[in-house]
Amino acid sequence: MSAPEFPLTPTALDQTVLAALAEDLGVAGDLTSNLTIAEDAQATATIVARKPGVLSSLAIAARAFVLAGEGVTVKALNSDGGLVEAGTAVLEVSGNARTILAGERTALNFLGHLSGVASETRKLVDAVSHTSARICCTRKTTPGLRALEKYAVRCGGGFNHRFGLGDGVLIKDNHIIAADGVAAAVENAKAKAGHMVKIEVEVDHIDQIESALGAGADVIMLDNMDPPTMARAVQLIAGRAVVEASGSITLGTVAAVAESGVDVISVGWITHSAPCLDLGLDFQD
Amino acid sequence: MSAPEFPLTPTALDQTVLAALAEDLGVAGDLTSNLTIAEDAQATATIVARKPGVLSSLAIAARAFVLAGEGVTVKALNSDGGLVEAGTAVLEVSGNARTILAGERTALNFLGHLSGVASETRKLVDAVSHTSARICCTRKTTPGLRALEKYAVRCGGGFNHRFGLGDGVLIKDNHIIAADGVAAAVENAKAKAGHMVKIEVEVDHIDQIESALGAGADVIMLDNMDPPTMARAVQLIAGRAVVEASGSITLGTVAAVAESGVDVISVGWITHSAPCLDLGLDFQD
Amino acid sequence: MSAPEFPLTPTALDQTVLAALAEDLGVAGDLTSNLTIAEDAQATATIVARKPGVLSSLAIAARAFVLAGEGVTVKALNSDGGLVEAGTAVLEVSGNARTILAGERTALNFLGHLSGVASETRKLVDAVSHTSARICCTRKTTPGLRALEKYAVRCGGGFNHRFGLGDGVLIKDNHIIAADGVAAAVENAKAKAGHMVKIEVEVDHIDQIESALGAGADVIMLDNMDPPTMARAVQLIAGRAVVEASGSITLGTVAAVAESGVDVISVGWITHSAPCLDLGLDFQD
Amino acid sequence: MSAPEFPLTPTALDQTVLAALAEDLGVAGDLTSNLTIAEDAQATATIVARKPGVLSSLAIAARAFVLAGEGVTVKALNSDGGLVEAGTAVLEVSGNARTILAGERTALNFLGHLSGVASETRKLVDAVSHTSARICCTRKTTPGLRALEKYAVRCGGGFNHRFGLGDGVLIKDNHIIAADGVAAAVENAKAKAGHMVKIEVEVDHIDQIESALGAGADVIMLDNMDPPTMARAVQLIAGRAVVEASGSITLGTVAAVAESGVDVISVGWITHSAPCLDLGLDFQD
Amino acid sequence: MSAPEFPLTPTALDQTVLAALAEDLGVAGDLTSNLTIAEDAQATATIVARKPGVLSSLAIAARAFVLAGEGVTVKALNSDGGLVEAGTAVLEVSGNARTILAGERTALNFLGHLSGVASETRKLVDAVSHTSARICCTRKTTPGLRALEKYAVRCGGGFNHRFGLGDGVLIKDNHIIAADGVAAAVENAKAKAGHMVKIEVEVDHIDQIESALGAGADVIMLDNMDPPTMARAVQLIAGRAVVEASGSITLGTVAAVAESGVDVISVGWITHSAPCLDLGLDFQD
Amino acid sequence: MSAPEFPLTPTALDQTVLAALAEDLGVAGDLTSNLTIAEDAQATATIVARKPGVLSSLAIAARAFVLAGEGVTVKALNSDGGLVEAGTAVLEVSGNARTILAGERTALNFLGHLSGVASETRKLVDAVSHTSARICCTRKTTPGLRALEKYAVRCGGGFNHRFGLGDGVLIKDNHIIAADGVAAAVENAKAKAGHMVKIEVEVDHIDQIESALGAGADVIMLDNMDPPTMARAVQLIAGRAVVEASGSITLGTVAAVAESGVDVISVGWITHSAPCLDLGLDFQD
Repeated sequence: MSAPEFPLTPTALDQTVLAALAEDLGVAGDLTSNLTIAEDAQATATIVARKPGVLSSLAIAARAFVLAGEGVTVKALNSDGGLVEAGTAVLEVSGNARTILAGERTALNFLGHLSGVASETRKLVDAVSHTSARICCTRKTTPGLRALEKYAVRCGGGFNHRFGLGDGVLIKDNHIIAADGVAAAVENAKAKAGHMVKIEVEVDHIDQIESALGAGADVIMLDNMDPPTMARAVQLIAGRAVVEASGSITLGTVAAVAESGVDVISVGWITHSAPCLDLGLDFQD
Repeated sequence: MSAPEFPLTPTALDQTVLAALAEDLGVAGDLTSNLTIAEDAQATATIVARKPGVLSSLAIAARAFVLAGEGVTVKALNSDGGLVEAGTAVLEVSGNARTILAGERTALNFLGHLSGVASETRKLVDAVSHTSARICCTRKTTPGLRALEKYAVRCGGGFNHRFGLGDGVLIKDNHIIAADGVAAAVENAKAKAGHMVKIEVEVDHIDQIESALGAGADVIMLDNMDPPTMARAVQLIAGRAVVEASGSITLGTVAAVAESGVDVISVGWITHSAPCLDLGLDFQD
Repeated sequence: MSAPEFPLTPTALDQTVLAALAEDLGVAGDLTSNLTIAEDAQATATIVARKPGVLSSLAIAARAFVLAGEGVTVKALNSDGGLVEAGTAVLEVSGNARTILAGERTALNFLGHLSGVASETRKLVDAVSHTSARICCTRKTTPGLRALEKYAVRCGGGFNHRFGLGDGVLIKDNHIIAADGVAAAVENAKAKAGHMVKIEVEVDHIDQIESALGAGADVIMLDNMDPPTMARAVQLIAGRAVVEASGSITLGTVAAVAESGVDVISVGWITHSAPCLDLGLDFQD
Repeated sequence: MSAPEFPLTPTALDQTVLAALAEDLGVAGDLTSNLTIAEDAQATATIVARKPGVLSSLAIAARAFVLAGEGVTVKALNSDGGLVEAGTAVLEVSGNARTILAGERTALNFLGHLSGVASETRKLVDAVSHTSARICCTRKTTPGLRALEKYAVRCGGGFNHRFGLGDGVLIKDNHIIAADGVAAAVENAKAKAGHMVKIEVEVDHIDQIESALGAGADVIMLDNMDPPTMARAVQLIAGRAVVEASGSITLGTVAAVAESGVDVISVGWITHSAPCLDLGLDFQD
Repeated sequence: MSAPEFPLTPTALDQTVLAALAEDLGVAGDLTSNLTIAEDAQATATIVARKPGVLSSLAIAARAFVLAGEGVTVKALNSDGGLVEAGTAVLEVSGNARTILAGERTALNFLGHLSGVASETRKLVDAVSHTSARICCTRKTTPGLRALEKYAVRCGGGFNHRFGLGDGVLIKDNHIIAADGVAAAVENAKAKAGHMVKIEVEVDHIDQIESALGAGADVIMLDNMDPPTMARAVQLIAGRAVVEASGSITLGTVAAVAESGVDVISVGWITHSAPCLDLGLDFQD
Repeated sequence: MSAPEFPLTPTALDQTVLAALAEDLGVAGDLTSNLTIAEDAQATATIVARKPGVLSSLAIAARAFVLAGEGVTVKALNSDGGLVEAGTAVLEVSGNARTILAGERTALNFLGHLSGVASETRKLVDAVSHTSARICCTRKTTPGLRALEKYAVRCGGGFNHRFGLGDGVLIKDNHIIAADGVAAAVENAKAKAGHMVKIEVEVDHIDQIESALGAGADVIMLDNMDPPTMARAVQLIAGRAVVEASGSITLGTVAAVAESGVDVISVGWITHSAPCLDLGLDFQD
């Protein structure tokens, strides 16, 4: 799989990396390396996957080394979205040894976390590849990393739901109660939202669907339904709206969900609970 | 367990929350609530644990609601470090309904992630409670969240290793190679580091220990050793330095590691791979 | 007209105001008032419209006074979206005289500019009120003020197009050329965009419409067409997509454009070239 | 006219551009281009004036493209302060097509607004060129853009009044009331202000002039007087202070004001109400 | 002496204090207090002068305590510009003991440094009080503290020179060389500077004065002259410009300089080399 | 003496320099140079020491010129930690004359202040060079400059104490009172602090030492004792902890303190009250 479009400008990327470096380097810098390694010592090291997975955000890892100090060059040996085996080298950094060590942890923290997101996403994508269903993330992201985690989802072959509360309308139970019913909620939204905004409605029961469609919903989210119910909902909707499945979907259940005919399957844990992909930095002799 | 000291000033806490709110609210705000809920609608809601775990960072969740808009008040119903069961209400927010919904996801993203870290930590702490070993985190943290994840570790009963590269010396294999041996590396560091800085040395083989101690190491890290080897190392060190175990330690192996007599067990995955604690926001009728 | 939802959190609002105050107060503060007015002098002043118009962003003007120093209270005498005549008082500020004067220019610069945007918008809205067409803004906004100018458009009764390049797809001539035709461009976008993203296509010629619709465009923008051509386009589209008119539309031509049957009329100059609404600060005896 | 000195350091310029790019690109980036244009597509485009005017801030437009992404080069085809006709190409950008499109709107929003300010200023400057009067701006600027709008005024041949409240004393009616008279106000200011600070006094009536001069005012501002009254004031002042005219001056009245003999004519609307200069980006075949 | 006007808005003051607190508290907070003092321990403490001097910036010290944590109140016992003896209590803080200790060092670092500047200034002011000469600071300030150090100079009875390179013209030797002579340099500046900008010329030799005055200089700076030469220069200038003495002036020489008849004496070391005023925090039983 | 490790990343260094440049350049830029020197004038200048001392932070001075504008190159002629005589050239800058002058004051303000800290430190270091005692700084630093002043101390041959409240425990009188005695305070801290944190106890009386040692203190600070008392304390401690002398130590007394046998001598005034090293910028013909 080729890499999807990276969402940050070069400057925004650097700001993200610099904030993380500041956490690690503080005001005293890397005491250990400064005290044990000569100022002009040179080295070459590679980041190597310890476990199989899907890569995301090699560019961030690369910048972590460059921004950690003076005098290093970095070469990507793989690309975002790429599948790696245990032992695959993914990035080479060479130059000032102090700088390499000052950037190491920050580079690995980003790369491990975001590749973890991509790797979990990819498992779900593979599990539904015999259907036309898309795997999609949610707004359940790690604070500060939304844009990057959503990019990592794309690296894993998934798609993105809303980036925030401002780029789409998603009417849930509390909105429906406040607006006195599905139809009224959707109609209010349609009357006042801009014409580029899609309107999605979350339904708990199949009998809410018709009024949502009648009021003009663009997307129907089936919340916590079992696959047979979803299949009936898909039949009922019959192409009049995009159908999204959501709620408690696991790697074990996702294929059945996809086979119900839904268009989109959204999963929160690929961003909020994906374990790190295990990667390490090896110095070369 | 009572709550440990929260590390951030009120202002630093707010800056962290505001950055996360900005990710979610963007420049357009919460379209859905603004379009479907009356400006002055009032509500009361509680954050409820869906699964058992240990809480961390209720204060952050509380501020997420307050900073999301006008007119809400928040009451903590539990405290950081507290054990909760599925169904336990942990925080109540009441007031302007739009503000509650604008803050919901940010509050839950912080609280879920950090309580997840506390919960995983607590499992390890409980598993070694028959020994005097401490559970300790590493610098393998999520970029942007280091201070908070380290606090979450304390909420789970764990201890913190270094906060960054500047508050302690940890000499690893690459430093030893660069400095031409364990003894030289430790001596260099001791000669130049401030007198408030502790010096730890990572050893792969038991025969590196004596020269580390001879050069004045304060802490010996046993890297990826099996418990019997660790027990021999503990005997050899005999109280001359703190002993830390590190590398590939799981919930299944941690008790045996602790029983080897080490003082500290450091575990990276409690910060980088802890799954979210499942929590949700329920509106009250 | 009642005020639309204000888009900024209280903190984001303050940051915007503080940046503007910093421009005016610099590091030396308000030399004139500090040198000529007693530290504890008190006063009451009102912001008064010198010309008729529509108000926007009274809350910003209010904060400019409060954040300029100590000891003032502010009372809004009108509300955003409100029509005012020459001589209407819209905001009262009382307390420390130095603070009032330190905040004056910043308050008026925001209020005058944003009320100017609202006022121009309202003229267009009134001119098409006999039709169902909406007046809509563009991304041609003043750098730094996009969220506020889009809010001002809503205060004037208009609607918002995209807030930025990330919350909607708008395929223009250069994209069409790059993608080898309208159909291919729309299909590409549909295949890869998230399911909450609407796809709009700008067409220069009426014969591009059918392929855009066929590929699934949600919105068709008619670029620089005359009203009779637009009417034919509306007939051709026949409700299969939202129709937006764009390009060189003035207060003189907007009614004819609206009468062609288009759904949305987008106008750049209401944000980039609206003259300030003339307002002044009058001290009371 | 050759370009005046640009006021921002390269870094300050970049920060201004980046903030504007962030408004437009958000966290999702340029969806349309990313979905419809190949990652490595190349193009060349020029910014072309659609109407005649005076340029300001080509350097900002250039940086908007460079900072929007990777791989573009920019060449200025004209210079700040330069007069352009409809059809004049002013800047060429070539390289990565996605980057060009990501930077387009930000570049045009800055260049159009600031060239609009320069163009309006130039009209006034030309109207008074048969006199020695200078055209000067005020602090009635767009929040966030003060330094740039003041530069644009210089590009149009105008001069700058104070940059903020801290670089000069301007005593107005409210200060005079608070200080119990013109003489007391000026004396207070002279006694306490630094020796590099000039003191200007706004007078509504010709009979306030003598006491302002007697107390040592450096500049007299004639507020909202008609040209014959101004001429009498100029005679009365007789070179003892700089004379500035202010208030309700238009392109139609400015020549008569200048002919009254005043030294400086300050005009608020050249910064707060100047319409954009119409410019567009044309791709080359 | 009563306090001069404080130059910062409340928000700018807080930002300055927060940056300093962040240096001291880092991401780990005040380890010592958190580990040895109960979370709810209460205390009252006073800041007491250990040596005599002049106070500056009590408001900053007060905010350092308030922003360091929760639950303290602060009462100023003296005011900026006030003379204190050894033993004088200047500020009382009471409430949460951890917060008091977390803010202590930041409060004292600001208050000691800025009171040191005020105290040195006051010695010079007292030394020339039998003349009409003013003591004035320069741009030789500590990076990051310019506005505050200039305020401290005013607290000591001194006056401020330019705040930066943008609020006044000061033509020195290198400008004169570049412009081909004093007259040309001053004329250039006068022709292009705004009408609110004063023009000062630094002269090394008495024979440069006449051409500076002829070209319209507002202020003449006598650089490194001895008092008799200064007296001759004052006679020559004869009120046609303000006269400023500069260069190598000490507490021992300042009276003689003042007696030469100059208007202003500028001294760099009152900002860049003033020793701290010694102050300490005493807890009350 | 060779230069110690510089603590800031290149980006952090630039941010520090840019903030200082912003103070000096404001929004109007360097009026004088822009008005008197041609845009393309070239020059070469050197920073020259006017007095003997020890250099610190040449890299900051160099960046001040580079970041002040376009078109200059800088060459260090000496290095941090280097001893200079009056007349020694330490840095050469050549290129655009306006840029050189725009950066001059910022470069000199940093270099003078930090070299002043290094120079005072070096005097103390030399005074104790016949002993094994180290000279060490405190947290009494200038707000905003802690990392740089601590680096300057290292340039002068000194060592650093804690960088902030989070990288070490230092138990003082108030903590001891709050914790009910020395032993309890140290035991509390040891029980809860991380294993990389050293614990220091400040003692006023020699009879507090034994209980501090008994509870496990790593460092004993002797507060305001005379050298004979210190010598007895050193004997008593007998290598069981590091011994630090603190309080009212001057250049005149430091040798006697060192001869008492203490390991570390901490001195606040080397950071908070060091006078600037006098340096100037000389243009070359």
